[in-house]
Amino acid sequence: MTNYIAVDIGGTRMRAASYTADSLIPLKIDRIKTRKKNSLPQERLKKLIESVWPDEGEVAGIGIAVPGPVNCAAGIIETAPNVPEISGFPIVSYLQAVYNVPVYLGNDANLAALGEWKFGAGRGHNYMIYLTISTGIGSGVILDGKLFSGAQGYASELGHVLAVTDGPVCSCGIPGHLEAVASGTGIAKWVAEQIQNGAETSINPETDDSGLISGAAIAAAANQGDALAVQAFKRAGKYLGQALADFLHIFNPTIIVLGGGVSQSYDLFADELQAALQAHLMMPHFAKDLTFALAELGDDIGLMGALALARESTC
Amino acid sequence: MTNYIAVDIGGTRMRAASYTADSLIPLKIDRIKTRKKNSLPQERLKKLIESVWPDEGEVAGIGIAVPGPVNCAAGIIETAPNVPEISGFPIVSYLQAVYNVPVYLGNDANLAALGEWKFGAGRGHNYMIYLTISTGIGSGVILDGKLFSGAQGYASELGHVLAVTDGPVCSCGIPGHLEAVASGTGIAKWVAEQIQNGAETSINPETDDSGLISGAAIAAAANQGDALAVQAFKRAGKYLGQALADFLHIFNPTIIVLGGGVSQSYDLFADELQAALQAHLMMPHFAKDLTFALAELGDDIGLMGALALARESTC
Repeated sequence: MTNYIAVDIGGTRMRAASYTADSLIPLKIDRIKTRKKNSLPQERLKKLIESVWPDEGEVAGIGIAVPGPVNCAAGIIETAPNVPEISGFPIVSYLQAVYNVPVYLGNDANLAALGEWKFGAGRGHNYMIYLTISTGIGSGVILDGKLFSGAQGYASELGHVLAVTDGPVCSCGIPGHLEAVASGTGIAKWVAEQIQNGAETSINPETDDSGLISGAAIAAAANQGDALAVQAFKRAGKYLGQALADFLHIFNPTIIVLGGGVSQSYDLFADELQAALQAHLMMPHFAKDLTFALAELGDDIGLMGALALARESTC
Repeated sequence: MTNYIAVDIGGTRMRAASYTADSLIPLKIDRIKTRKKNSLPQERLKKLIESVWPDEGEVAGIGIAVPGPVNCAAGIIETAPNVPEISGFPIVSYLQAVYNVPVYLGNDANLAALGEWKFGAGRGHNYMIYLTISTGIGSGVILDGKLFSGAQGYASELGHVLAVTDGPVCSCGIPGHLEAVASGTGIAKWVAEQIQNGAETSINPETDDSGLISGAAIAAAANQGDALAVQAFKRAGKYLGQALADFLHIFNPTIIVLGGGVSQSYDLFADELQAALQAHLMMPHFAKDLTFALAELGDDIGLMGALALARESTC
């Protein structure tokens, strides 16, 4: 029996699971914290993989989703802002030496796109744009029936393109990126600014570790009709629609899939997104046969993407 | 002997040439005006093709570059603003029926990219971005060693992405596109605006059919040190650099090729372009192994692109 192992490395937790060649139900599944005092993440990763190693049959490949840009050919994580210990670490050669099994590495957002395309909302499409809108905006693109990753594996950073000239500074340091205005963080920062400027609102003012009101609290208030919260989502939708029009000009896909926490509030910004998209299209044929869908795989998307990568046996 | 025919349909002129399978020197070459009273462009095109038909050997394919978005699968020109008579015309089935030879249709900017990649500045690269900066900004992208054209053939309209929020209106009607601020037209319009606002300049104020000062006149003045003309190119360079940074985030290519009339004045805006590109990169590795080049094929690029398409036998 041929099996595959999928690993999803997040800033907070690592998950791993083993699967047969033709099922999405894990044989074994486990999760641990990514970081712990006096223990390197790569050592913890090794133990995690061992804990889900199947009891029978061989392992034909290990797929790993990591939070950061990946140099696919070299098998290293270029930078992982949330897990600095693995930045630049040759994770592929390290694990291949330990297990003598092919190891494939992918950026988490790219693999989420691959997962949605293989097992979720994007099935049957050869050209797909996937955006995951949560703390940041990650993305992945399927072109001509393949995950697109560019010459060195860095491609499709669609959250990091200009959305507003001289707009708010993005997590990457550049002003005005889409992520800075339309991610959960972008929405929460805008709300904080409005409140500071005296806007009245019923949004629960509690802030989380990042010093910001949670997206969930803003969504809850918007669903109760709070004007500021409603406006916060509409504003994000407008920027998303405008950016998606450009992405249609660039990629000419047949489907756009939206995932991530913010997309769960799609109803709050769908009208503005669709209106801005139409208003920014250079010609209507770019949206003629376009499907819009919400991601289907939920919390399992990291594992599903890593599994798809391992089964595809390519990076 | 196997031969190919290449056709370049422009707003003003149509050119055609025949070639053997392994040479870039035409067997026959001809050009006529695209439009003439009482004569349909498609009829004129047929005569033009006949005038370059090789005397010996068979014709294995005809490649045609057209000025507008192409529906590749259907073999039609979606819209051709400069040659409205051929908008929506089923040019592929028409010519195939006449000659019983495979006919391949491509957008002129996409085919220019294909030409530069096969025969010009982009040789040896698998991931290339090509921008042709003249009246407008056209573009073509090579991904994974193939011309990228998206699901329906409309992709890679890189001149039609946001460059300036609420910026000048583009030829396509959308405000703030790259083409509107960094094309020859964008440069000339900005110069006209500054002159109207009282800017002093030594630029020759003669305007052409479009009511604008020619790019050549602005370049000539810039080369003489005219401050307004110098600033006009620097401004375009800044927007091009900013946009190219985003294109690196999106495509992760190994080479950028600039063509078109404005690129002949590259020295006038190279510093601003490169500085803006670096300043807008989210991470330096996006430009680590990047080559910059100017297009090599000059006026032959339309024919070279159509020839490359015919020899590739795919659209």
